[in-house]
Amino acid sequence: MRRLYDFELSGSCYKVRLLLNILNVSYEKQNVDFIHKEHKNPTYLALNPFGEIPIFEEDGLRLRDAQAILVYIAGKHDAARSWWPADAASQGRITQWLSIGGNEIMSAAGARLVKILNYDLDLKKLQDRANHVFKILDAHLSGRDWLELDHPTIADIACFPYTALAGEGEISLQPYANVRAWIERIKKWPRFISMPGI
Amino acid sequence: MRRLYDFELSGSCYKVRLLLNILNVSYEKQNVDFIHKEHKNPTYLALNPFGEIPIFEEDGLRLRDAQAILVYIAGKHDAARSWWPADAASQGRITQWLSIGGNEIMSAAGARLVKILNYDLDLKKLQDRANHVFKILDAHLSGRDWLELDHPTIADIACFPYTALAGEGEISLQPYANVRAWIERIKKWPRFISMPGI
Repeated sequence: MRRLYDFELSGSCYKVRLLLNILNVSYEKQNVDFIHKEHKNPTYLALNPFGEIPIFEEDGLRLRDAQAILVYIAGKHDAARSWWPADAASQGRITQWLSIGGNEIMSAAGARLVKILNYDLDLKKLQDRANHVFKILDAHLSGRDWLELDHPTIADIACFPYTALAGEGEISLQPYANVRAWIERIKKWPRFISMPGI
Repeated sequence: MRRLYDFELSGSCYKVRLLLNILNVSYEKQNVDFIHKEHKNPTYLALNPFGEIPIFEEDGLRLRDAQAILVYIAGKHDAARSWWPADAASQGRITQWLSIGGNEIMSAAGARLVKILNYDLDLKKLQDRANHVFKILDAHLSGRDWLELDHPTIADIACFPYTALAGEGEISLQPYANVRAWIERIKKWPRFISMPGI
C-alpha cells in the first residue's frame, strides 16, 4: 500500500505526484486540509513533527520531505535508474539541486503563500531571494537542457514546481529565458502532469 | 587530486572534513577567507554562484553544498556503504535529515554568526527556530542512538556540527538530554575529529 498525504495546490506535493505518474506507480491520496492548517494539528504532527506536507508511506516506511521522497521513489521504482542514478558523482550532482529545491527556491513558494493565502511574511525579501536564485538557475541552464547529467533527473523535478509557479508570487520569469525554455521542455515530458497554476 | 575549499570555523566545512577523516581520504585544503567575504568575490562566485562554502573537487568533478558533498564522498569512498547505503529506503530516510541539516538546523548557524561575527540577523527568531528543531530532534532521538538506521550515517554528520555549536549562538542544549547524549556518542567515533567550539 502506498499513500501520499497530499494538498492539490502544494508544489511540494506536486513534485511527488509528478514523479509517481512518470514512473507509473499507483498510490492513494490522503488529502490534507492545508488551508485550515490540518498539517499543524496533533494527529498530523504525530506523523511528521515538522508539520509539513507531503508525507509518503509505502510498506511500513514513512517519509517526510519532498526531496527525500523523490530520492526514495526514484531509487525504488525507476528500474532504469535514470531519474536518480546509482553512481556517486551523479547522486552528488543531483543532491546539489535537491538542496536548492528545498531551500532557496522555497522563497518563491513563500512569496506565493503571501499572495494566494495572505501569509504574513516579508514579500519583498522573498521575491528578492527568489530572483537571486532564478538568476543563477538561468545562467546554469545556458547551453544545458537539464540541471545535471544529459537527461532529466529528480533535480529537475525538485526545482521545477515553485519556479513554474513564481508568477503566483508576483515574480516574473521574463528576464530568465533559459529558465522559461527549461520549463517548456519539462512540460513536454511524455508522462508529464500539471497542477493548478502551471 | 582532491581539494576542499575550507574555512576552519565553518560547521558546513567541518561536516566534510569529518567524513573525509573517518573514511581516511586524503585531500588538499584551500582556505577561504570567510571573514573578509572571499566567498562573495568574483573568483569564488565563478566556482560556486551561490557564494557558499564548502566546495569539493575531485577528478574534474566540482560540487557545492555540504550535503551533496557528503552524498558524493560516502558513495565514492566508503567501500562498506555504511554511511550512505545504496538501497532506496535507507537513502530516503537519510535524505530527510540532509534536508534538516542544510535548512532548519542552519538557524542555529545563523544565531552563531550574529554572536561571533556580528551578522545583522534576527537573533531571537533564529534561536526560536533552532529550539523548535532541537525539540523535535530530541524527541526523535528518544530510544535511538543514531538519526536513522542502527548505525551512524551521513544524516548524523549533516546535523551534528551546528547542533554541537549551538551554545556559540547562545542556544542552550540543557533541555535536550537525548541530543546531548547523541553528541557525546558522536564524539566517541574512532576517527572523530573536532573543530573549534566543539
